Amino acid sequence: MPSLKIYLAGPEVFHAEAVALGRAKQALCAAFGFEGLYPLDGAAPGDGLSPQEAGVAIFRANIALIREADAVIANLSPFRGPGADAGTVFEVGFALGRGKPVLGYRNVIDGYRDRVAAWNGAPLGKDAEGRPVDRDGLLVEEFGFGDNLMIDAALIEGRVPVVTHAAPAGAAMTDLSAFSACLLRLRDLLAPG
Amino acid sequence: MPSLKIYLAGPEVFHAEAVALGRAKQALCAAFGFEGLYPLDGAAPGDGLSPQEAGVAIFRANIALIREADAVIANLSPFRGPGADAGTVFEVGFALGRGKPVLGYRNVIDGYRDRVAAWNGAPLGKDAEGRPVDRDGLLVEEFGFGDNLMIDAALIEGRVPVVTHAAPAGAAMTDLSAFSACLLRLRDLLAPG
Repeated sequence: MPSLKIYLAGPEVFHAEAVALGRAKQALCAAFGFEGLYPLDGAAPGDGLSPQEAGVAIFRANIALIREADAVIANLSPFRGPGADAGTVFEVGFALGRGKPVLGYRNVIDGYRDRVAAWNGAPLGKDAEGRPVDRDGLLVEEFGFGDNLMIDAALIEGRVPVVTHAAPAGAAMTDLSAFSACLLRLRDLLAPG
Repeated sequence: MPSLKIYLAGPEVFHAEAVALGRAKQALCAAFGFEGLYPLDGAAPGDGLSPQEAGVAIFRANIALIREADAVIANLSPFRGPGADAGTVFEVGFALGRGKPVLGYRNVIDGYRDRVAAWNGAPLGKDAEGRPVDRDGLLVEEFGFGDNLMIDAALIEGRVPVVTHAAPAGAAMTDLSAFSACLLRLRDLLAPG
């Protein structure tokens, strides 16, 4: 039986050790009997392309890998702000739209509200109904999730809620313990019977 | 012939005038012969639910609206950081995964790289290959797009690139001129022949 293919979504493609991180994730996949499909957004997709053409080529390559995959495991750790990387979130949505199982992990354990408060740089305000608002006056979700509700609720609906882990500072892209936990959960989810 | 239904994705659901903004978008849709489907993430989905259950209920309601929609128009303006709102990006990915046309607008005209540089709080660094990196040492994309390549390339592939507009400061959630431009482009895209 061919191995099930897992698309490895996450912003570690932007890390200096992106290639090695991909190999490490693929090795962990193999240990569970899966094949890991790893994107590499920083790779040069070909000579003679304009930057935008190169970007479109990487988009097409990533979409082709997701279409080929049987499931997705996403690194949903915060990236340049209080929430997950936009490219990863796009891929999670796309895969769920295609009906594929998606699991995810977050290498921090605090809630989205607390992370927005830290980003805000000042205590959150309150709207006319007493609900928390950020410095732009925009409502802050209070569902007890670790990110925007569309992400966390999607994974709850998929039967494996986001796996959270308190990684050491600076290790959100490199700590693979929660990723390994996702592989274990995925093996259980896909197990017959 | 029944009106085509447009799902109205965007972080204006978190704005104090969220309900009025939804009505204004729906009125513009109607002027083009479309029906606008507007989510309202801040709405209480029912009594007696825990916060997380309420979040899951809103997720289900939004997904049902996207499934019902014939197309999506997304407000991709920056939200709590250099890039678009995660919930909106999730919905864009989901709709594209379902094969639905997605258009989008961004109420700023600067590039993603410049916005990351502003967020960074210090000049961007360089990696060993001379490519720009942020304060966490993570590579900054240089494709000339206004956000993560998965978002902007997806819309290029969909034949209507992100519509950008220099809205006045503080009006990224309320300025609907680029949204109106998307309606015009969508009408052209869907026109027979």
